[in-house]
Amino acid sequence: MEINREQISDWLKQLQDSICKALETADAHSKFEEDVWTREEGGGGRTRIIKEGKVIEKGGVLFSAVQGDTPDFLLKEQEHSVIATSGPKIKSRFFATGLSLVIHPKSPMVPIIHMNIRYFETGPNAEGQTTRWLGGGIDLTPHYIVAEDAKFFHAELKKVCDRHQKEYYSRFKKWADDYFYIAHRKETRGIGGIFFDRLGSDKEMSFEQNYNFWKDVGLAFAPVYTDLIRRNKNLPFSEKNKEWQLLRRGRYVEFNLVYDKGTKFGLETNGRVESILMSLPKLAGWEYDFRVEKNSEEEKTLDLLKKGIDWV
Amino acid sequence: MEINREQISDWLKQLQDSICKALETADAHSKFEEDVWTREEGGGGRTRIIKEGKVIEKGGVLFSAVQGDTPDFLLKEQEHSVIATSGPKIKSRFFATGLSLVIHPKSPMVPIIHMNIRYFETGPNAEGQTTRWLGGGIDLTPHYIVAEDAKFFHAELKKVCDRHQKEYYSRFKKWADDYFYIAHRKETRGIGGIFFDRLGSDKEMSFEQNYNFWKDVGLAFAPVYTDLIRRNKNLPFSEKNKEWQLLRRGRYVEFNLVYDKGTKFGLETNGRVESILMSLPKLAGWEYDFRVEKNSEEEKTLDLLKKGIDWV
Repeated sequence: MEINREQISDWLKQLQDSICKALETADAHSKFEEDVWTREEGGGGRTRIIKEGKVIEKGGVLFSAVQGDTPDFLLKEQEHSVIATSGPKIKSRFFATGLSLVIHPKSPMVPIIHMNIRYFETGPNAEGQTTRWLGGGIDLTPHYIVAEDAKFFHAELKKVCDRHQKEYYSRFKKWADDYFYIAHRKETRGIGGIFFDRLGSDKEMSFEQNYNFWKDVGLAFAPVYTDLIRRNKNLPFSEKNKEWQLLRRGRYVEFNLVYDKGTKFGLETNGRVESILMSLPKLAGWEYDFRVEKNSEEEKTLDLLKKGIDWV
Repeated sequence: MEINREQISDWLKQLQDSICKALETADAHSKFEEDVWTREEGGGGRTRIIKEGKVIEKGGVLFSAVQGDTPDFLLKEQEHSVIATSGPKIKSRFFATGLSLVIHPKSPMVPIIHMNIRYFETGPNAEGQTTRWLGGGIDLTPHYIVAEDAKFFHAELKKVCDRHQKEYYSRFKKWADDYFYIAHRKETRGIGGIFFDRLGSDKEMSFEQNYNFWKDVGLAFAPVYTDLIRRNKNLPFSEKNKEWQLLRRGRYVEFNLVYDKGTKFGLETNGRVESILMSLPKLAGWEYDFRVEKNSEEEKTLDLLKKGIDWV
């Protein structure tokens, strides 16, 4: 039998449970608090927030499943939509379910992480067809880039990809480099990761096969990130490291408010603001024309914030 | 003889000088530092930054005068552009000169202020015509709204408007309410002020008359803001007030990165990033689902962050 939307959103809820549990164990102090919300046009979500932990300063793990009339941006983007057909126009409906998370750690030695996996359905169109696809992304933003950690992170993502489709890692790694890019700064947000969208079925991969890949991405998060926490949480740091962290977080805010499509879409379509903007850090800073010192750790990190680095 | 672009940009440079001097006197500690820059496509600017003052934590007063091929966004917006004519298409040129400032004070009891005044020229079009206009805005963002100060601020702006055109204050006050609005928060950025654009010549006002109004707006800034500093700089404040200031600054960042047209235009057209983003505070904060206490000063301020309040 075909996988249906209920099964997919149920699976995401379980994933939310297991991720929150793993993060609480890694933090060893704070617990998530939950807000359950509903959306007037249909559906709702479970927003879970953790703060003032030993490791995590502020983080959110969000599940949502919403439906309604298909928003214009989706109709425009989508080749299979009713707009493109010559048949009678019927109102297209959409269903979207996903899990999003952003973790801002307290220590500047522990990296920020983001993951989103989502499932979309639109239709039926004039021919009675429903379109569905999967999207997702996971990327790491170390305040200080540690080559060994970057290599580990990318190698783990490559393993996930390679289990399903040999070309996925190189395609989706490049996609992440292009997506998580702060154009006005000519900097990547961090060391990237993988990003993909509109995975459905094609000659090579059935929807079910892509669904299995997508689930594996979601399952990879907790072991990979908790290992990165374990590696770095006890490293000492200075006031200077904290100041640099504030500036890096400022860049994170710039990316999320200026470029991130999920944020833009959420704000424009009257989404739940507190859930959308949970991605912003507790504190961020900006300094006019800040210059890193020559040969400093900050300079080394800045030099690595570019596209096309082969970490594996 | 007609006022030309050189006279206008010279006047703006003098205004920058006098505003910086007035702010240095009011701060009584820090001095502005200047970066002179040029733009590859033509023109340049003088960016002046003040920081770590007694009153001002971070602020910038920027002059620029730039020219080049007219960017698409201007061609699209503009009825008189060559795009709309049926004559031979010639490449439209633009010239823009302006002064922009944002001041983030150290004390949460002193309001944030922003002002921008700008002059644009495009053309000649296929008929040999040049189009020119003036724009500007000034708005106040108190961390805590003090009715008396808000009334003073608006009354001073009304005086400036009334000297030139009886309807300007009410029109431009409403325009500011609509412009300085954080739609996703359903909050105004602060108590507004005035905002106007595309002032040229019409039946009632010649270009020269509007130019005199526009200059008066620029001249009003220093006496009004230094008076607001004087009124509030010695007020005591608590840790709680400082935390609220961080959250209000977070909203300021949201407005500037999500909505502000000048910021968007600057970032999209490869402007000087450090000058554009000088508007962001040294530190800003976000807290998930922050709620103000009942009957607190924070609640009173939040209740006043709406459009259509008649302060005068």
